[in-house]
Amino acid sequence: MVSLVTLLTDFGTADGYVAEMKGELLTHAPDAAIIDVSHEIRAHDVVQARDAVGRYWQRFPVGTVHIVVVDPGVGTGRAAIAVCADHRFLIAPDNGVLTAPLQCPGATAVRLNIPSGASPTFHGRDVFAPVAAALLVGTPLVQVGAPHPHPILLPVPTPVRFADGIVGEVVSIDRFGNAITNIDDVPAESATCDVHGHVLPVRRTYGDVEVGAALVLRGSSGHLEVAVRDGSAAERLGLERGMTVRVSPV
Amino acid sequence: MVSLVTLLTDFGTADGYVAEMKGELLTHAPDAAIIDVSHEIRAHDVVQARDAVGRYWQRFPVGTVHIVVVDPGVGTGRAAIAVCADHRFLIAPDNGVLTAPLQCPGATAVRLNIPSGASPTFHGRDVFAPVAAALLVGTPLVQVGAPHPHPILLPVPTPVRFADGIVGEVVSIDRFGNAITNIDDVPAESATCDVHGHVLPVRRTYGDVEVGAALVLRGSSGHLEVAVRDGSAAERLGLERGMTVRVSPV
Amino acid sequence: MVSLVTLLTDFGTADGYVAEMKGELLTHAPDAAIIDVSHEIRAHDVVQARDAVGRYWQRFPVGTVHIVVVDPGVGTGRAAIAVCADHRFLIAPDNGVLTAPLQCPGATAVRLNIPSGASPTFHGRDVFAPVAAALLVGTPLVQVGAPHPHPILLPVPTPVRFADGIVGEVVSIDRFGNAITNIDDVPAESATCDVHGHVLPVRRTYGDVEVGAALVLRGSSGHLEVAVRDGSAAERLGLERGMTVRVSPV
Repeated sequence: MVSLVTLLTDFGTADGYVAEMKGELLTHAPDAAIIDVSHEIRAHDVVQARDAVGRYWQRFPVGTVHIVVVDPGVGTGRAAIAVCADHRFLIAPDNGVLTAPLQCPGATAVRLNIPSGASPTFHGRDVFAPVAAALLVGTPLVQVGAPHPHPILLPVPTPVRFADGIVGEVVSIDRFGNAITNIDDVPAESATCDVHGHVLPVRRTYGDVEVGAALVLRGSSGHLEVAVRDGSAAERLGLERGMTVRVSPV
Repeated sequence: MVSLVTLLTDFGTADGYVAEMKGELLTHAPDAAIIDVSHEIRAHDVVQARDAVGRYWQRFPVGTVHIVVVDPGVGTGRAAIAVCADHRFLIAPDNGVLTAPLQCPGATAVRLNIPSGASPTFHGRDVFAPVAAALLVGTPLVQVGAPHPHPILLPVPTPVRFADGIVGEVVSIDRFGNAITNIDDVPAESATCDVHGHVLPVRRTYGDVEVGAALVLRGSSGHLEVAVRDGSAAERLGLERGMTVRVSPV
Repeated sequence: MVSLVTLLTDFGTADGYVAEMKGELLTHAPDAAIIDVSHEIRAHDVVQARDAVGRYWQRFPVGTVHIVVVDPGVGTGRAAIAVCADHRFLIAPDNGVLTAPLQCPGATAVRLNIPSGASPTFHGRDVFAPVAAALLVGTPLVQVGAPHPHPILLPVPTPVRFADGIVGEVVSIDRFGNAITNIDDVPAESATCDVHGHVLPVRRTYGDVEVGAALVLRGSSGHLEVAVRDGSAAERLGLERGMTVRVSPV
């Protein structure tokens, strides 16, 4: 059986920190297959990391260990945690980056023991990597830490339903300039969507509008997205995280 | 035998889309070894992707499956294809990114079946990844799609030969500022090369000119390149994709 | 046993050069597990590469082969070398990027034979990758080149000790704006540190100062670092590589 470990950090790669973690992982678990998710999360952007984790953590096979190191609080009293959810493991600082798996029914968390020799500023290398290796070889979660009943959640605001529609918000902007919302009802194509002063049609896919036109569609995460065919909705419409999105029947 | 899958996308990594693809791949093909080519292709830059694919696709072992997702047309009627060429497989949108392998003698292409549940805006995850897994375990190409006799080619313009020389053009600029041309004849060192108003000597390698001097040489792809020793030819000489390059005997 | 090869380059990934190297590696050594360290070293920044190598090379298991291609001198007469140090192998241009492993007791270096067909401008693909594959399958170092007794070192300046303190310098700035120095004595918390006109307290970790405050601490490499809690010391204090750092007892 393959032992999968994924890595998500805000380290960049040029400083060698990610390589130090990989070296520690492979020293403790020589058969691990390491999968880079990203090292280009904006420095300390816990929200961007939470959104990425929400997308990928359940796409990997059962038994995968996901490490997430976006950790503005390293070197303070914040807890380091390991979580078991839906037969996968996740290791991260307790700052909300694991909100999605923690909201999964049956998820359990432990607070990791910090070895006395660990650098207070690099838990990714000295705490998370060895714990990942331990979990890969079958060490029970309860042996790597003490129960941690109230891990920090950083939930996405829930959209609000009115008689005449739904009001949600933009929760992230992707590399292509698509604005992803927290609305997971797909309205009928007779509806319209109002965002930052623009009234946009609801369509099934980009090909349903002209090149350069804006639309709203069900994105690949199942949530409503604002997009521009062959262009950037964020740039064209001036969209930012947190902006209000209102869906109305015609 | 190792099952190799390479990934080239314009997704960046921070949004988690690449990780979703990797998770799907490993769920369907747990023994696959995933090789990142790049996720930093400029958004929607089909030409940059075509040039990169041309460089690496045949360098990998027989049986490798290459996935390419630079796909401005996702969500329109564009076809998704799988190609078998020189004992390797390639999976991509039908937009010219696979021009190099398609020009290989004996290459065959099929148009992929799109599963009904696939997101119309993320074929990389819902179409290409499962097809890659199928090909890795030996599924014949004809079982993943119908024959597609006329895939789109995006050929590089052929240089023109005159009695007194060759006229070609700059087809790409690399990270170091080298300008790579479409000329694959290596002229004698008695020739000169005229590009954007500069007359440059033809030499074998950087060390044949002074630091900071410009030259033309046979690059590592076998094509003529314009370079500056320890510097950027693109910046120094103002070079861009598409500029004319003329090689003349002295 | 797993065959590990790590890659550190300044190639970026979009041009396909790294993929060419990976393809060559896997063609010659199909079972190799390739670990990306980074391809985002600043173009030709031998010092940044040296510092990264110093961090990670010994963290990987015995037998690992590390390839480093930051090579402004490719295409000149510079040597290409392979090094065995502390039971790991390293392959790189002879330009100082391997200073850390070369300073390890017992390190030995050979000058690589350059095959006649190798591109003079891409030794990473045509020289380093095949040599890495050879070393992975147990080829002795002496069979890939001739003894090279005086490889180039690019040492970090040694800090100077005075009766009333230590004077060192900033040797690198990481992605978070931490300034890492060459001082590997950790002074007592009663000491202060003077850098670029700022007098900073010595503390154990970020959590020991207020958010936004500057401090000096023992970093994860064991060297003294200048940091700002939840911020960038480089930006806030105007720090750059080479600046003087003075530690004084109170």
